[in-house]
Amino acid sequence: MNHKLLAAGLFTLATLTSAQAQSTLTFYGIADLALRNVNNQGVGSLQSEVSGSASTSRVGLRGSQVLPDGLSAGFNFEHGLAADSGTEASATKFWDRRAVVMVASKTLGELRLGRDFVPTYTVWTRYDPFSYVGVARSADFFTATPAGPIKSAFAANDNTTVRADNTVQYLMPALGGVEGGLLFAPGEGNDATAGRAKVAGLRLGYAAPGLHVSAATQSSQNSLTTVGKFKDVALGASVDVGPVRLSGAWRQLKYDQSKQTNLMIAALGTFGKHQVKASMVKANMSGQVGATSIEADDASKFGVGYVFNLSKEASMYASLARISNDGAAKFSIPGGRAGLVAGGTSTGYEAGITYRF
Amino acid sequence: MNHKLLAAGLFTLATLTSAQAQSTLTFYGIADLALRNVNNQGVGSLQSEVSGSASTSRVGLRGSQVLPDGLSAGFNFEHGLAADSGTEASATKFWDRRAVVMVASKTLGELRLGRDFVPTYTVWTRYDPFSYVGVARSADFFTATPAGPIKSAFAANDNTTVRADNTVQYLMPALGGVEGGLLFAPGEGNDATAGRAKVAGLRLGYAAPGLHVSAATQSSQNSLTTVGKFKDVALGASVDVGPVRLSGAWRQLKYDQSKQTNLMIAALGTFGKHQVKASMVKANMSGQVGATSIEADDASKFGVGYVFNLSKEASMYASLARISNDGAAKFSIPGGRAGLVAGGTSTGYEAGITYRF
Amino acid sequence: MNHKLLAAGLFTLATLTSAQAQSTLTFYGIADLALRNVNNQGVGSLQSEVSGSASTSRVGLRGSQVLPDGLSAGFNFEHGLAADSGTEASATKFWDRRAVVMVASKTLGELRLGRDFVPTYTVWTRYDPFSYVGVARSADFFTATPAGPIKSAFAANDNTTVRADNTVQYLMPALGGVEGGLLFAPGEGNDATAGRAKVAGLRLGYAAPGLHVSAATQSSQNSLTTVGKFKDVALGASVDVGPVRLSGAWRQLKYDQSKQTNLMIAALGTFGKHQVKASMVKANMSGQVGATSIEADDASKFGVGYVFNLSKEASMYASLARISNDGAAKFSIPGGRAGLVAGGTSTGYEAGITYRF
Repeated sequence: MNHKLLAAGLFTLATLTSAQAQSTLTFYGIADLALRNVNNQGVGSLQSEVSGSASTSRVGLRGSQVLPDGLSAGFNFEHGLAADSGTEASATKFWDRRAVVMVASKTLGELRLGRDFVPTYTVWTRYDPFSYVGVARSADFFTATPAGPIKSAFAANDNTTVRADNTVQYLMPALGGVEGGLLFAPGEGNDATAGRAKVAGLRLGYAAPGLHVSAATQSSQNSLTTVGKFKDVALGASVDVGPVRLSGAWRQLKYDQSKQTNLMIAALGTFGKHQVKASMVKANMSGQVGATSIEADDASKFGVGYVFNLSKEASMYASLARISNDGAAKFSIPGGRAGLVAGGTSTGYEAGITYRF
Repeated sequence: MNHKLLAAGLFTLATLTSAQAQSTLTFYGIADLALRNVNNQGVGSLQSEVSGSASTSRVGLRGSQVLPDGLSAGFNFEHGLAADSGTEASATKFWDRRAVVMVASKTLGELRLGRDFVPTYTVWTRYDPFSYVGVARSADFFTATPAGPIKSAFAANDNTTVRADNTVQYLMPALGGVEGGLLFAPGEGNDATAGRAKVAGLRLGYAAPGLHVSAATQSSQNSLTTVGKFKDVALGASVDVGPVRLSGAWRQLKYDQSKQTNLMIAALGTFGKHQVKASMVKANMSGQVGATSIEADDASKFGVGYVFNLSKEASMYASLARISNDGAAKFSIPGGRAGLVAGGTSTGYEAGITYRF
Repeated sequence: MNHKLLAAGLFTLATLTSAQAQSTLTFYGIADLALRNVNNQGVGSLQSEVSGSASTSRVGLRGSQVLPDGLSAGFNFEHGLAADSGTEASATKFWDRRAVVMVASKTLGELRLGRDFVPTYTVWTRYDPFSYVGVARSADFFTATPAGPIKSAFAANDNTTVRADNTVQYLMPALGGVEGGLLFAPGEGNDATAGRAKVAGLRLGYAAPGLHVSAATQSSQNSLTTVGKFKDVALGASVDVGPVRLSGAWRQLKYDQSKQTNLMIAALGTFGKHQVKASMVKANMSGQVGATSIEADDASKFGVGYVFNLSKEASMYASLARISNDGAAKFSIPGGRAGLVAGGTSTGYEAGITYRF
């Protein structure tokens, strides 16, 4: 059994060796639940129990096989759930987080097919110490609720700011610290209501001890993006200063005459079993949707968090965050009462438990 | 590998030991199918294949980790299915049976979050030898079909007589034979159609060799319980007389001007590989719903069963039961034809196979 | 651990031995994704990513226990998924592929309950080298789209040409090379919209080295089959000529005044890591639906395929197929644009990756 996997708290079902091939099948997941309070300006507070505030609750299956001549093959199916109610994270996609199969060569790189993360999401979330989840998540600025590029391009249908169906990816082999990949998804008719979009993307990164930089760009088309493509560009970097990782990321979304520019500055300090996190995120809306200007509809968010790691598998945490809206913006922390006033603040705090298996 | 788990027929994926923590991940489940005949007075018989007549068909994942200083952490996700058709037991909640994460101390007790059983259900079912399932199940009296407290408080939405979402529980540490716990769930806006209810409950029990007593009380509020809380109280006891466990339980449900009082007297005899079961359950409706009295709408049920245990994992069984209704009551055994006459009888028998993994 | 299972790439969680019983629990599955192009006459080409073109993407759980006196017990739950989007193969039946529990005796045979394949499907697909999936699948002729016996008997509801809910099966013990079984499913009220049908079927086969023959017949009734039963009969045989398996099958579906007769001739050659496949399938419609004759609405399909087995678990493949329609027939390869002209051709090709775990 692979000792590194044990240290990571993953359970490897079996490692089989034959003359031809060595296979591994790993079962893994996360159970994460927290109690949250959200106060939305104008409507007051609401308490709730929420799933996945430190890391999305999930169950996954991952397998791979080492083949001769530096080749390998494998797959990954990953299901997300809302552990507060036992509900699937997606009503229609049980394996909403990932469903991929791949073949790879050590020298030529990897070919991967299936539902997977898009390049810009991968870049952006690498530099978010809150992993895009919880009260302090940067995800609150990537919703289709406000008038802007996401809503204009996708309406209430699946958008491609996180994942895409039907992807074909080429990932380059490890080359010094350089890594990168190409992603393409056929539109399959570009039926937005079925969540189908034609996607093309590119990602490049460089890692050295204590340093990480990466960038990505992608475009999406569906039956709604009739006046051009939805464009998504992301850049980010992190640097380790002693026990503290400082990070920053920039991401811009564009569609038609609307644009959303996001900036994140964050820090993650690890002191033995203790971790402290802080992030500041800004969303700057510009341009217009139809005849309506969205220039004034900006927002910023500040979040802090603390994690106590009981072990590598079990932890307890608490976080606190506030969104400040301008103009007609109504960005809010999930779990609050409906009716936040335009330009108001949304404040949330929570405490919870994470168990990784 | 833990020998006790083996004996129970559970499969433990791996037991990992490090200087810091020892973890276990267990995969388990039940496949249970039976053939059933139900005769509803006035409409005749219908044959069907049914899932979970001796124990609900399910697939579960359970993990825990022993931490230093008497601490531990863990989780449990459990999915129910109808194995006759391959359908999920709940159309919206894949992990309908349980989704919890916990941290515990040997001296201070356990903190548990997530979807779980409510205290009154835990008390009541402990004393039901049919485990709340099958033709002889006591569950038939806890449906929202007849006019009474359950239907008045929850209509066709999720009710809290079995499980609740969003729970926070404190479970006391083992203290002699005394065990107990508190449960609370925030209402999250109390939207009944979304299955959200504010729940508060308490359970206490005492176990000694050959003896078990317990009691629980809880109240629920949602957007429909506008004239007060839905109240649920349960008491029960069992005593072992040689190879026979005699048990009895009492449970009362109240909402607005309606009340339902349930009484169960049961016996479970274990003779080597053979088990015999019998139970008598009565539901006494009283008060009124709106202007309509439900005083006369009572019912009683008698059930007997036999189980042949091929092993600890595999068994075959047969059961027989009859519900006798009074007044306007139409309680019925599931799987029959629609149209049972008011005050009529519903008779069912079945035979099936259980496999535990 | 069972060496045969290892060779098949299956992962057995644990094999437990006690004085009483030996149990096995196996976790298995397939991840299969391909890129496809389909050209439908009159509407042109469409590219897509598709799941399960060489073998349906799935996750399964299988367990069994050896009991004393030649007895055994076991279960199988199997879930199908569309790995291109992470979606369940069936919107309502998570375990759509199989959900069964069984007890068996070496001398008396097996009793099996649950959702399972019907006998005629088992016979037909044994002789299809494309396993009823992918661009070259024979399944395209067993849809409810065209006017004919399937649509007449089941409309858009679940049909019984592949699987049935609620089955009770008796499978005879191994007897020389002879195998066979009986299947029955209660109608449970025969509600077609709920997918319930009363089914009765029979299967018999004989296997010798290099030779296989089998036959099956079944009938189905639901609330729509008011003018008689839906009848399904299948025959097939295969013979090995050196490294090539030649196979043929015949299957006839009848309902009311409509009849569909299907014929398949196929070859599968295995040359070390390389496999080549070819099949020719014909669907001959006859009789009438209401007052409309369907005599001219025939179709034929030709498919070829190549598989490169990287190992027993991982493979890459490419296939090519064409359907030629006559009369009003519009049979098509899935994944194309809507609007194929009546009597037109549908041409598809694809290349993909399969990983078995």
